[in-house]
Amino acid sequence: MRSFAAASRRFADGTSSPVAFLEACLAVIEELEPSVRAFEALHVDGALELARAAETRWRKGEQLSSIDGMPIGIKDIIETRDMPTQNGSPYFEGHSTGRDAASVQALRGAGAIVLGKTVTTEFAGPFASKTRNPRNLEHTPGGSSSGSAAAVAAGMLPAALGTQVVGSIVRPASYCGTFAIKPTVGAVNRGGSHDGLSQSAHGVLAASLEDAWNVLREIARRVGGDPGHRPLAATSGTLSGNRPRRLGVLRTGGYAAAEDYARRDLESSTDRLAAAGVEVVTAESSPALARLEEAVADAQRLSLEIVGYEMLWPLRSYLDRDASKLSPLLRERVLKAEATTPEDYAELLDQRDAARATHDALRGDVDAIVTLSATGTAPVGLDSTGNTVFNTPASYLGIPAINLPLFEHEGLPFGLQVLGFAGADLEALSVAAGIKEMAAPR
Amino acid sequence: MRSFAAASRRFADGTSSPVAFLEACLAVIEELEPSVRAFEALHVDGALELARAAETRWRKGEQLSSIDGMPIGIKDIIETRDMPTQNGSPYFEGHSTGRDAASVQALRGAGAIVLGKTVTTEFAGPFASKTRNPRNLEHTPGGSSSGSAAAVAAGMLPAALGTQVVGSIVRPASYCGTFAIKPTVGAVNRGGSHDGLSQSAHGVLAASLEDAWNVLREIARRVGGDPGHRPLAATSGTLSGNRPRRLGVLRTGGYAAAEDYARRDLESSTDRLAAAGVEVVTAESSPALARLEEAVADAQRLSLEIVGYEMLWPLRSYLDRDASKLSPLLRERVLKAEATTPEDYAELLDQRDAARATHDALRGDVDAIVTLSATGTAPVGLDSTGNTVFNTPASYLGIPAINLPLFEHEGLPFGLQVLGFAGADLEALSVAAGIKEMAAPR
Repeated sequence: MRSFAAASRRFADGTSSPVAFLEACLAVIEELEPSVRAFEALHVDGALELARAAETRWRKGEQLSSIDGMPIGIKDIIETRDMPTQNGSPYFEGHSTGRDAASVQALRGAGAIVLGKTVTTEFAGPFASKTRNPRNLEHTPGGSSSGSAAAVAAGMLPAALGTQVVGSIVRPASYCGTFAIKPTVGAVNRGGSHDGLSQSAHGVLAASLEDAWNVLREIARRVGGDPGHRPLAATSGTLSGNRPRRLGVLRTGGYAAAEDYARRDLESSTDRLAAAGVEVVTAESSPALARLEEAVADAQRLSLEIVGYEMLWPLRSYLDRDASKLSPLLRERVLKAEATTPEDYAELLDQRDAARATHDALRGDVDAIVTLSATGTAPVGLDSTGNTVFNTPASYLGIPAINLPLFEHEGLPFGLQVLGFAGADLEALSVAAGIKEMAAPR
Repeated sequence: MRSFAAASRRFADGTSSPVAFLEACLAVIEELEPSVRAFEALHVDGALELARAAETRWRKGEQLSSIDGMPIGIKDIIETRDMPTQNGSPYFEGHSTGRDAASVQALRGAGAIVLGKTVTTEFAGPFASKTRNPRNLEHTPGGSSSGSAAAVAAGMLPAALGTQVVGSIVRPASYCGTFAIKPTVGAVNRGGSHDGLSQSAHGVLAASLEDAWNVLREIARRVGGDPGHRPLAATSGTLSGNRPRRLGVLRTGGYAAAEDYARRDLESSTDRLAAAGVEVVTAESSPALARLEEAVADAQRLSLEIVGYEMLWPLRSYLDRDASKLSPLLRERVLKAEATTPEDYAELLDQRDAARATHDALRGDVDAIVTLSATGTAPVGLDSTGNTVFNTPASYLGIPAINLPLFEHEGLPFGLQVLGFAGADLEALSVAAGIKEMAAPR
């Protein structure tokens, strides 16, 4: 992978430059895009001029931000004024709103170069799209931020925006082997994105934790979070590797579905953390963690019920227009969701609120929680985007979730997932950086 | 005004009918629309066929809902598949998304006839549009739901959708003399509306409280509320006039700005309520109410700061495209809001949450709170949409607010405002119905 943060430390003395960085990205795109298919659209015109301007600013120490000149990809359910926004759906073929989403407006303001729209599954849902896993083209890249994960993993870009409602950032990051953060729900402005679901969050897939944080921070500084939500605390503070004192291990409802090698790798990691002096607690040793296991055991089903109800209106409106343009998978979701009443939905929210309180009770008790990012490596085939069971807990709880691409099995990567506390995204990243050093296989 | 609920009681025996009702609406539109200018677009084609079908269903007792065949207007920041959605802005001239907003989808599902798009001010903000007050064409109808208020007051429609972030439903209802409800924030699905602001709510301006409730209920039953919010409790319960036991009077930060006649009318009303046996409390007699007065004293300024920050992104994106298409009023708001940091915004939300808790502490203590709906009657002239100072408290608190068009001064109407408790919209309407009978001038 290609870290912009690492390269930028040599921008001032001219031993590296935004222009050289961009050219390296473009060379990989030219070479690999025909097989990986990470992009719905590329906007290369003018990118070189933007990189040259950034280069001049870095030389003078007048860069607009830490990501001035960073080539970046935007998941194709987020609006861009200079490229179509197609939402992975034939309903939106060639569709353009002519404006930048809040996150894109902020990125441009920080000097980032919006190089392309990355492939998303249909309305960021379960129906797979055309992208392939750059680590093995016969395997899924995961979804729904498929193109963002593939582009970053292939070294086409140092970072790309993704969105997660169920498992759409952390799972493709795990399958493709990138770093990623899904931040606290509401903390990053989603204005100008198709998806207004209550568990949805904009996040970043990146070549390093530092790149991911730099992107998040520059967005939040300029456009804050969603209306009615506390914005990501981004004005002060820098990312550093914090050694955790005490960590929880969450097995989640997915543990039974995990591959043996994945469970072994998780256990070896927590053994290394314990050997390094970190106190590691589980549901067996911590009643609070046992309560959390119980609260999220059914998170996947409950998340799908919540999301299904929330998507009823837009999907029905598309069905009214032309039912043939909706995938059978989403048509089935509509039918299922029709049975949910407003009263059912209110109860689902009550239950979710209770689960969030159960998680928040661990604040101060553990520094973070670790679990797997996926049941194993990316499944073979391109029809399914894989199992979200390890990702739904963080989405359901609305908390920061970070993928650390620490593990490998038969040549394919998978990740350790670090879960932080709501509103403490930088703290979660800092603990993840500490865990990365301590927990990696040797 | 023209109540559909009242007329519908004669639909079964054929002494009235949806067709006759529609024809009466169309006759008034034809007569008055050239001077009142309530509509951005009318969609009369096919309306008669829809009314005929509804008529047949009513005769058989097979009506789709209580609003089957109701002609209705949709504020022009809410999407409709068969008419443009122009958001009161030249940026969106002729713009169509080709889909129905959630509320519109629900209304059609309930059999309502979407007859037109009603005029809104620019992005539902302070910049006045072309609509005139049907009670006196030289006066403002108020804003931003200007066309909805004017159309209902003139008898063109029994009900129309509005939206309120600051004072955009209750104030025009007060100035034009219609009933109206701005429900609990989040309780009515806003999907497919331009406005995603945290204080914004979809509501109804109507010829009667029953019409308003029927419309709200049919929307909430079919599409619920906003993602992450409890939907309006609408499945069971009917609107009845509930005699309040104990009422609070809120003077708000606006009391000093109110006209003498308006203050006198409010006081006479509360005197009548007291004479009828209702216990009436004020900040002088209730410490809890005194705390609430303090919590909302600055609601107007605080609301504008919150909304200003939340509107920064979309307005900046329009400015980037063509600054000349944004009114000086909104351009000034952008400049002002640029000074707000994410940390300032988080503090504004904390302060608003605290105010909401202060209000909620009165639950069970008083049945509702009454105040004025506006400082007086509609100001003369069409340049300003009037003062929102009496409307911001309910918007800021996120609670139901109802306009009762009880008062008149020099031939123009103004209203008594009834404030309920979050999540108890039907209860608020029922108490308002009781107050209407007891507090009206004799």
